[in-house]
Amino acid sequence: MAVSKSFYAIVAGTGAGTGRSVALRFAKSYPVVLLARNPSNYEDIVSEIKQQGGEALGISADMSDPAAIASAFENIKSEYEGRGLGLAAAVYNVGARPAIKPFLELAPSDLDASLDGNVRGLFHFAQATLPSLLASVPTSPHPPTLLVTGATSSVRGSTRFSVFAAGKFAARALGQSLAREFGPQGVHVAHVIVDGLIDMPLTREYVVNEGREDGKINPDAIAESYWHLHTQHRSSFTQELDLRPYVEKF
Amino acid sequence: MAVSKSFYAIVAGTGAGTGRSVALRFAKSYPVVLLARNPSNYEDIVSEIKQQGGEALGISADMSDPAAIASAFENIKSEYEGRGLGLAAAVYNVGARPAIKPFLELAPSDLDASLDGNVRGLFHFAQATLPSLLASVPTSPHPPTLLVTGATSSVRGSTRFSVFAAGKFAARALGQSLAREFGPQGVHVAHVIVDGLIDMPLTREYVVNEGREDGKINPDAIAESYWHLHTQHRSSFTQELDLRPYVEKF
Amino acid sequence: MAVSKSFYAIVAGTGAGTGRSVALRFAKSYPVVLLARNPSNYEDIVSEIKQQGGEALGISADMSDPAAIASAFENIKSEYEGRGLGLAAAVYNVGARPAIKPFLELAPSDLDASLDGNVRGLFHFAQATLPSLLASVPTSPHPPTLLVTGATSSVRGSTRFSVFAAGKFAARALGQSLAREFGPQGVHVAHVIVDGLIDMPLTREYVVNEGREDGKINPDAIAESYWHLHTQHRSSFTQELDLRPYVEKF
Amino acid sequence: MAVSKSFYAIVAGTGAGTGRSVALRFAKSYPVVLLARNPSNYEDIVSEIKQQGGEALGISADMSDPAAIASAFENIKSEYEGRGLGLAAAVYNVGARPAIKPFLELAPSDLDASLDGNVRGLFHFAQATLPSLLASVPTSPHPPTLLVTGATSSVRGSTRFSVFAAGKFAARALGQSLAREFGPQGVHVAHVIVDGLIDMPLTREYVVNEGREDGKINPDAIAESYWHLHTQHRSSFTQELDLRPYVEKF
Repeated sequence: MAVSKSFYAIVAGTGAGTGRSVALRFAKSYPVVLLARNPSNYEDIVSEIKQQGGEALGISADMSDPAAIASAFENIKSEYEGRGLGLAAAVYNVGARPAIKPFLELAPSDLDASLDGNVRGLFHFAQATLPSLLASVPTSPHPPTLLVTGATSSVRGSTRFSVFAAGKFAARALGQSLAREFGPQGVHVAHVIVDGLIDMPLTREYVVNEGREDGKINPDAIAESYWHLHTQHRSSFTQELDLRPYVEKF
Repeated sequence: MAVSKSFYAIVAGTGAGTGRSVALRFAKSYPVVLLARNPSNYEDIVSEIKQQGGEALGISADMSDPAAIASAFENIKSEYEGRGLGLAAAVYNVGARPAIKPFLELAPSDLDASLDGNVRGLFHFAQATLPSLLASVPTSPHPPTLLVTGATSSVRGSTRFSVFAAGKFAARALGQSLAREFGPQGVHVAHVIVDGLIDMPLTREYVVNEGREDGKINPDAIAESYWHLHTQHRSSFTQELDLRPYVEKF
Repeated sequence: MAVSKSFYAIVAGTGAGTGRSVALRFAKSYPVVLLARNPSNYEDIVSEIKQQGGEALGISADMSDPAAIASAFENIKSEYEGRGLGLAAAVYNVGARPAIKPFLELAPSDLDASLDGNVRGLFHFAQATLPSLLASVPTSPHPPTLLVTGATSSVRGSTRFSVFAAGKFAARALGQSLAREFGPQGVHVAHVIVDGLIDMPLTREYVVNEGREDGKINPDAIAESYWHLHTQHRSSFTQELDLRPYVEKF
Repeated sequence: MAVSKSFYAIVAGTGAGTGRSVALRFAKSYPVVLLARNPSNYEDIVSEIKQQGGEALGISADMSDPAAIASAFENIKSEYEGRGLGLAAAVYNVGARPAIKPFLELAPSDLDASLDGNVRGLFHFAQATLPSLLASVPTSPHPPTLLVTGATSSVRGSTRFSVFAAGKFAARALGQSLAREFGPQGVHVAHVIVDGLIDMPLTREYVVNEGREDGKINPDAIAESYWHLHTQHRSSFTQELDLRPYVEKF
């Protein structure tokens, strides 16, 4: 494992699933900053990365709070950019878990929770990271990358998922807009539609796809696709891809 | 003009363009409630409807303020449903005009303005009107209808339109979710992608489509499509259609 | 019923469902030419139109055979354009019923049958009608219109429907291309996604949507949407709309 | 370079661009069969692979001719499967270059050329390779994979590209249908939308994207994404992804 001494990565929204696997995957090449609301969501991952010879820093921040983000990024920038490291990749994986309910039973706060986690947080995160990503364009070994985690509800509104879809569609809109604006400047912005249940402790008891083997998405497999997106040559950027188990109905 | 004495319609977001034309079109068949933040946005239309023998009521309300909406709908319900009228159609046409800027020049309030007008307002409006629309299912001459006005940015994120697209994608997600939830209960929810500049006083000076005749969308033509959607048989509902000038590039 | 003495319409692919209803609907305003492979598919409709005071002409032609189409259109043009009538609307509704089978059980002829009916026929039909539609632009009361009937398989490939989807996707591609090419010249090209089972003699015994009332699409309702598309103002053309029963899962 | 002695790959449609790069990339791990109409399209690539220590076999076959394909596959199967090798990956990259013309200037043969190369050939290729891919499911180190090369015209019909779009939409329909049918059986079917001009001898003189560096797609970069698709874990399959230069307008 040869970790870069010139570039680092940020993963916002870590926990047991995609965020953890992506952080571990990117930590093979970069020092990684993990952002999560609760330290319990990154502490173990930070340790795991360090045990594997990597470098990691966990910072607690609520992505929907601009002041918290500003403070976290001051911290990050002084820690990494102050040492001359450039930002190579920023991953927005905040997993707002909004209310899944019939529409007439939802409260306005249910909508706000989805918009906060899925859109507002991404807006703040993108505003905080894009200047650093742009600054890395001339020197980064791979095109600096902003990756956004989507879901089935990013492309499909459905009964009981109305507010989740509102937030996820909006995040896709932001990602697509940023790809069109920052791609020509050399930053790769991509959106991943995770169309299936992720295999992690939280979902262990759920039975999907008739309980077939590999019927839930292995988050390490997701992380491989994120890494592939990051390493794409700038003449051949993917803006959007879907990921789902072979047995998933779609 | 035979205006119904049993059903009424609501149009939220009136002004000089789509809202005005839709209100006038629906007023040929129903008493129409016009909702807008400023009375100046509905007063002339109310007069125009009355002059043509129709019935109209303007109510001032900020769609992103739940309390204002609740109060407006109490007012509406006592005025119409108290007299035994059922709600036949509700049109959400609130035209949030958010900042059109490079992403890094946007303020968080620019995102909020888009989300407020496009999503939060629709959420409140749908929660306020769906119970009445459902109640009209058994008796309404046409399937009770909830119509949402979209735009190019409902299906395409682009440079400078990032926050507008965020709001519009989210509104489309809500509309699609509501269509799937309330369609089987008999309420028709449809989303219209207005993909072009509307011909109205505000846009008179803008030159689009090389200034060709009918190169801007006639809002009365939009209103005809809204009326068509409202009168579709329940065995043949449209969920989404696009509208654009014949000379528009797309 | 005031049938135009200056314009006529053509409906290709008539039978008991959409084609019949569209022919009857357009016959309220125009003399209508009905094209079908077998006279038994238009004879009754021609009689029905005449009984209602309309004008109709049935012509037998296989849409996938360019020579047959050429001959049919010579016939049509001498009959109508020879008398000075212009073409106001052309509807392509040829209902190729291709094999619905597992992919490895399909024969190449199954693919060809789908391509013949859905794409080749449309190609020939569009080449035969577009010059006449263009010629009608300056005088037609509504923008001259080319309408194409699609299906669920126009936008979704699925198990057992692979060759049907191949044909339907291709027809959608043609329609979309023609809309972009001929729209700016004043011809309205629209594609309708009929996303459900049509209620007609052939489907009477099928139980869909739990057998609920209006769970199959009333073809007269489809015809109303075709007529609406035809009468849209050129500043407000729809390129694509979907139609499905209120109880349809989608 | 450790080339498998148990599995092989097939690339149909080789030449100077994507096909060549994909063949070279897959040849790092598998013996590769190259299929092209003219030997001149694979001879140099076969030599190149052999010089790099790989194994390659070129076979001349017209993909739109079922008899030619049958004969080619008998040849392939006796050569590889007779020796006990299983098929790990099959890539359909046939580059039909159909007429790009105004619709009314197209001949029926222009449509046929597009359908032959894009759809019929894929149909035959998929029927010939899927049984072998299915047979490899239990033993293949990566899920057996069928990859289809698409283009901008796979998702967008446009002026002058009508018949190209017809063929490309149809191929996408086939690919999507096959993904839904064969995914649950363990075969990964993916479609790649190549949305830009490929950098190869044929396109060297074309100026796109203002002539900016990397403004054409490096076919080796495309090949990396094909390889990534092939190596995805079965719990995390991508069905469709887009590839375009960072400076491409989309």
